[in-house]
Amino acid sequence: MTSTPRSSDLIARLAGIVGAAQVLTDPADMAPFVTDWRGRYRGAAQCVVRPGSTVEVAAVVKACADAGVPVVPQGGNTSLCGAATPDAAGRAVVISLGRLNRIVALDPQNSTISVEAGCTLAAVQEAARAADRLFPLALASEGSCQIGGNLSTNAGGVQVLRYGNMRELTLGLEVVLANGEIWDGLRGLRKDNTGYDLKHLFIGAEGTLGIITGAVLKLFPLPKKQATCWLNVATPAAAVDLLNSAKAAFDAQLTAFELVSETALGLVLKNIPDTARPSAASPWYVLAEFSDADPAAVEVWLADRLAAGEVGDGVMAQSETQAKKLWALRESISEAQKIEGISIKHDVAVPVSRIPEFLAMADATLEKAFPGVRVVAFGHVGDGNLHYNLSQPDAKKNESFIAAQTEVNRLVHDTIDTLNGSISAEHGIGQLKREEILRYKNPVEMALMRSLKQALDPRGLMNPGKVL
Amino acid sequence: MTSTPRSSDLIARLAGIVGAAQVLTDPADMAPFVTDWRGRYRGAAQCVVRPGSTVEVAAVVKACADAGVPVVPQGGNTSLCGAATPDAAGRAVVISLGRLNRIVALDPQNSTISVEAGCTLAAVQEAARAADRLFPLALASEGSCQIGGNLSTNAGGVQVLRYGNMRELTLGLEVVLANGEIWDGLRGLRKDNTGYDLKHLFIGAEGTLGIITGAVLKLFPLPKKQATCWLNVATPAAAVDLLNSAKAAFDAQLTAFELVSETALGLVLKNIPDTARPSAASPWYVLAEFSDADPAAVEVWLADRLAAGEVGDGVMAQSETQAKKLWALRESISEAQKIEGISIKHDVAVPVSRIPEFLAMADATLEKAFPGVRVVAFGHVGDGNLHYNLSQPDAKKNESFIAAQTEVNRLVHDTIDTLNGSISAEHGIGQLKREEILRYKNPVEMALMRSLKQALDPRGLMNPGKVL
Repeated sequence: MTSTPRSSDLIARLAGIVGAAQVLTDPADMAPFVTDWRGRYRGAAQCVVRPGSTVEVAAVVKACADAGVPVVPQGGNTSLCGAATPDAAGRAVVISLGRLNRIVALDPQNSTISVEAGCTLAAVQEAARAADRLFPLALASEGSCQIGGNLSTNAGGVQVLRYGNMRELTLGLEVVLANGEIWDGLRGLRKDNTGYDLKHLFIGAEGTLGIITGAVLKLFPLPKKQATCWLNVATPAAAVDLLNSAKAAFDAQLTAFELVSETALGLVLKNIPDTARPSAASPWYVLAEFSDADPAAVEVWLADRLAAGEVGDGVMAQSETQAKKLWALRESISEAQKIEGISIKHDVAVPVSRIPEFLAMADATLEKAFPGVRVVAFGHVGDGNLHYNLSQPDAKKNESFIAAQTEVNRLVHDTIDTLNGSISAEHGIGQLKREEILRYKNPVEMALMRSLKQALDPRGLMNPGKVL
Repeated sequence: MTSTPRSSDLIARLAGIVGAAQVLTDPADMAPFVTDWRGRYRGAAQCVVRPGSTVEVAAVVKACADAGVPVVPQGGNTSLCGAATPDAAGRAVVISLGRLNRIVALDPQNSTISVEAGCTLAAVQEAARAADRLFPLALASEGSCQIGGNLSTNAGGVQVLRYGNMRELTLGLEVVLANGEIWDGLRGLRKDNTGYDLKHLFIGAEGTLGIITGAVLKLFPLPKKQATCWLNVATPAAAVDLLNSAKAAFDAQLTAFELVSETALGLVLKNIPDTARPSAASPWYVLAEFSDADPAAVEVWLADRLAAGEVGDGVMAQSETQAKKLWALRESISEAQKIEGISIKHDVAVPVSRIPEFLAMADATLEKAFPGVRVVAFGHVGDGNLHYNLSQPDAKKNESFIAAQTEVNRLVHDTIDTLNGSISAEHGIGQLKREEILRYKNPVEMALMRSLKQALDPRGLMNPGKVL
């Protein structure tokens, strides 16, 4: 074990690598990097380093390893789980990847784009669009979140149904390892069976096994037209049936299938200006998007569903503006709920077929424990992934409800566990759910995870306190 | 280190676990299990054990671990790389998974099927079809290859373009680890970000990190109609252009896109009965399949390509029988070539955009080193994956050519390496390419692979001599 040198030695060495201007030590300069964007996690660091290349990242990691100092990689700092925030000890060095923001290459005939980890998601989407291609990952934070963070958390979003998670969108990776070596796995191959697939080890590992510095990502044909529908369904079970009907009829042309409860829509209509109810009131709604499907075929399918009573009422957007308005209803739910006060949020997944069961079980359990609780349920039903947010409508009652967060989480997550589901579908573990997974993941799985951590980061210096 | 007990002790213990009838020790009984199906690899074993459940597999692995005896898992024994054949030392125990052949569950609304590892691929396809779903993996060996082997080699095939490799088709796994513990990761979730993704570690690891005993696999809507076209193109570059045109127009409705050279077609027409040239002669052909696309749209697209001179001639199958005949031309290439004598085969991948460059470079290099060499190139151009098989048409000359296999491989694989490609796109490493990857994979990558092996199988008892 190397002893920790005086901070000033390390900082001088880091300044020698990246230039003094790229090593932040002033507390005011460091402030945006040592707390998460929602202000839920506050940490401290020796310094924030902003390397400009993979070679510099590697040298920084090596310098920190030599000094026995932990490193915390950070992209756009949009984690919902505190995954990019250092702990309070103040020993860590935050490595901000934002200067690695080059689009390295775009190969239209291979349908791939090679990017550095610090590119924002929006920049990658834009580069793809400029070449008449689609990079399908889309998130609320796309203007500021970075590809390295998207990879490290295996980001999801509304188009996973058709295109997969970040994991499925990745062909190659470049990673700086715990010892400061660079693994160059920047291949743009759709088939490669020459040994263990290392990229999947680092994707979703939240920087605890190495720092992702670059990637080769898949691109897709840019859809030429989209049909967007807002459809009333009586129950979550009817939504799952409708999903399967749409998949059978349109397969991969079904590119989004989102569930929204009347409670969620009601908050949007109440709190967000310029919103209007698109259809008659219904307990549940589905927002479905079809890409490059024959519009006449979508209309026939929809008419059949209405005739069969599988859909109670519905509208199909007649213009891009109308489509955007329908999407705005879905995308404003979090904001609309925030205006009402704090809520306890969950990001859960179950098999698609068990969505109705989950909602019935969880709703009943919570109502019993916390009478009057308001359930705002919505999300990616096509992936079996729901956001399930809870509060008490009465502000005074809500205070004590929020204080019972641990108990509330327990009830929701135990229900998920009963259904063989996931307590973190999209957002990852970070600091937030590190203890929580111990309850739900079996000991064999935890032991496997620890043995991988031990193999790749034996000294525990890579983003310590996250995931494990 | 446990000392090796007398073989009879171990065999008695194994018989106690699985029943004496499921422990084969007679050389004649063991023969089919200790050589590969092509007879290229011959090994020996203490015994062949046929467990009937995951718990039995675990107990067998534990017994072998206690005895310090290596285990070789085996599915349908259809490896092309000797991945399921024990070495010649005779110490190993072959674990045949064929009795774990239950379809455990099919969840139509989640579009998943849960199967044991010993199910044949055909049995899984059939179970899916019976539920009006598609399991898209399709291989020549599908009647005998098993899901555990498909997973352990990350199998590919002709539909990867649309549906992905076996890796992308898998949601959950069950694995018996080197110490005999069972990892139950049999989840049917499309989103789960609760830590490291362990399943990807075992998929494609050829049994060297653990033995896959079960899986939850993705299903898809069963296509209702298909359009199959045989299209003349002047060059591989024209084929890549055509691929991109088809993807832009049909996106995921393009479900196969195979390249066939005139040389390959010529061998089929010469050696396979009941075959006929479907179009005018051309240096290259594309076999394209569109699923659930509007037939009129395919016809319009094809007419436009013909008018633009991008396709020289072409036919669209007018019946399922015609479509099958077109597919038979593609699928008979290996057999047709075999009739002509032995060839040196390669299973390579490059970025799709570099297919033309690979063929030009490799053809020129080989012609220079081996004048008169016959190149039979064909395969999954939509995935950048070619089968590139070489022989000398003259039988006498071919003998010395085959003897120069090491040099031939070197020339092909060095070309692949120049283009940042893969020397094993689909078939894996097994025994065949274990030495070869040392030349092409960078030392950092090899060190990472070895550290994973060390972490999961520290005693090196899981399928030793394969991959690493």
